Amino acid sequence: MDIKGLLETNDVREEHTFSSEAETVPDTPAKHNPSKRKRSEEKPAASSNTAVMSAATKRPSASLRFEPSFLGTTKMSGLVRVIGNFLQHYLLNDTVGVMEIEAKVGNIIDPQTNKRLVLPVLSECVLNPEFAPSVNFRSDMTQSEHKHYNDFLNTAFVNAQRPGRAPMKYKHTKEIDKFFEKASHGKVRVSRNVADNTLMACIEKRRIADLFVYCPNNHFDFRISISDEIPVPLPKDESKPSFSREKDRVGYVHQDIHIDLTQTYQKNARSGTTSKRHELEVEFGNTPKLREYAESARNGSPLAWERVLNLFVENIRILLLQTA
Amino acid sequence: MDIKGLLETNDVREEHTFSSEAETVPDTPAKHNPSKRKRSEEKPAASSNTAVMSAATKRPSASLRFEPSFLGTTKMSGLVRVIGNFLQHYLLNDTVGVMEIEAKVGNIIDPQTNKRLVLPVLSECVLNPEFAPSVNFRSDMTQSEHKHYNDFLNTAFVNAQRPGRAPMKYKHTKEIDKFFEKASHGKVRVSRNVADNTLMACIEKRRIADLFVYCPNNHFDFRISISDEIPVPLPKDESKPSFSREKDRVGYVHQDIHIDLTQTYQKNARSGTTSKRHELEVEFGNTPKLREYAESARNGSPLAWERVLNLFVENIRILLLQTA
Repeated sequence: MDIKGLLETNDVREEHTFSSEAETVPDTPAKHNPSKRKRSEEKPAASSNTAVMSAATKRPSASLRFEPSFLGTTKMSGLVRVIGNFLQHYLLNDTVGVMEIEAKVGNIIDPQTNKRLVLPVLSECVLNPEFAPSVNFRSDMTQSEHKHYNDFLNTAFVNAQRPGRAPMKYKHTKEIDKFFEKASHGKVRVSRNVADNTLMACIEKRRIADLFVYCPNNHFDFRISISDEIPVPLPKDESKPSFSREKDRVGYVHQDIHIDLTQTYQKNARSGTTSKRHELEVEFGNTPKLREYAESARNGSPLAWERVLNLFVENIRILLLQTA
Repeated sequence: MDIKGLLETNDVREEHTFSSEAETVPDTPAKHNPSKRKRSEEKPAASSNTAVMSAATKRPSASLRFEPSFLGTTKMSGLVRVIGNFLQHYLLNDTVGVMEIEAKVGNIIDPQTNKRLVLPVLSECVLNPEFAPSVNFRSDMTQSEHKHYNDFLNTAFVNAQRPGRAPMKYKHTKEIDKFFEKASHGKVRVSRNVADNTLMACIEKRRIADLFVYCPNNHFDFRISISDEIPVPLPKDESKPSFSREKDRVGYVHQDIHIDLTQTYQKNARSGTTSKRHELEVEFGNTPKLREYAESARNGSPLAWERVLNLFVENIRILLLQTA
């Protein structure tokens, strides 16, 4: 593109004070346009710098659209960028099986104190993976927090049905998961619908990687986990699981992002007691599509990738702010 | 707004599987719409949850606009939110004098090691002010980094002159600052244009607050400083400053945000040596307007405030990424 042309179409160019000191450091943009420099020399210097700056600042710009930066574009935030790099790495290098990518809401626990981690920062940030192995994660909340999220998501669901909105969907499921130890390492999970015993899944789930995001200004942190879910044959005897749990879940779906609010009841076979947990997670509903976006980003078309990453993080952020 | 009306205008409502288990926990949004519940009971349950989820996920939505979250809106990131709260606090509580709000690019220094601070995090975050007093800040860069920024900003300037863009302005100034100790606490700074000795400013600058932003993925961090600049009378004898420095600055202005790239030369009167520094800072050019936005945000209209905060942080982010 012709630089002279660019400058000539600039309707406020008379307001610029082009320096005639061509060889000084720092350089001014005038060096890109020698013909312009001559013109600026013909123009008397503004009476004072203050006046020039003031004119620049006060010039009405109502007719121009607002730009999100001096480049006219935005960059991904550091948080989204790091999460994106993490996911892209595994999406592009581990293409076997059905990948599950989910963020669980909860708290990063310092094992030294058994309390929430404390770092001297005030805003959300990704933990360095070299440091992260020394922390735990507790993905639980109180029943009243769970109820609050349920109400909030139900309202969001109703609002998302308005004309022009991208509608949300939801469904309520009750499943029972039975876990079976494998002769080799690992566990097989058989999930069945509680109502009619329909087989929902029989998989071996393997954790691939975790990324911890510390959110000191919120009540909760989150952990992003990547797992492989490999379909496996049904165990021979389903009546003898090593343990089982019941999941009562309301699942919301918006633009391929799943938000699941789940109560789990786990029976301890020995003590006969039941432990109850309340979980909230945000999951990519379409990892093959996500992998396509990650590949396109690698090949120079990052738009869809950045958009879906921002969507994922934004949804988590909104949920965390609900209890801030 | 009428909730029943909202649901009735939902063109995909037939795809929802409304649970008939009205009293189960978690609740489903069906409780908002008793008339709807009856209808759902008339509809046979979907054959399997997987099929329902799959239909929900795969439904073509090309005709709908993409939404940035399930609320259809975005929240400020934690980083921008903390910076906004910090600025808002001082803008609304300290309305005397001319406030200067600027972000300097540089490095947060751990005084124990005299090297850059190391925290176990991977993405940009605000330091907790209770921790921050124990760190230093070094707002300097190499001459070649400075040159790189100069070239980058000159290119940005040229691009911003394209039709439809919000144009950038720039000016090149050389000033000399002379500093005078006050009998009481503090310093007076007299700034004059080098070329013609024009008085640019005679002020007493007082630091009000600092906020440190750690950017472990970038070469530089940044520090946001709020200062009062109080106009004061000229000192009686300008020939006897306690020290003086020369500033060679290229200032760029885009949408009321100033980006200043400065070389300073400071002479040490005793040793006769000159020290040279290279600085980059991003400053709000119109703090009275910024204060108006902060007030509007407090009164329930946060749009302009959020926009200009995002602009400020985005501009800094772009500059930091230039050396990543």
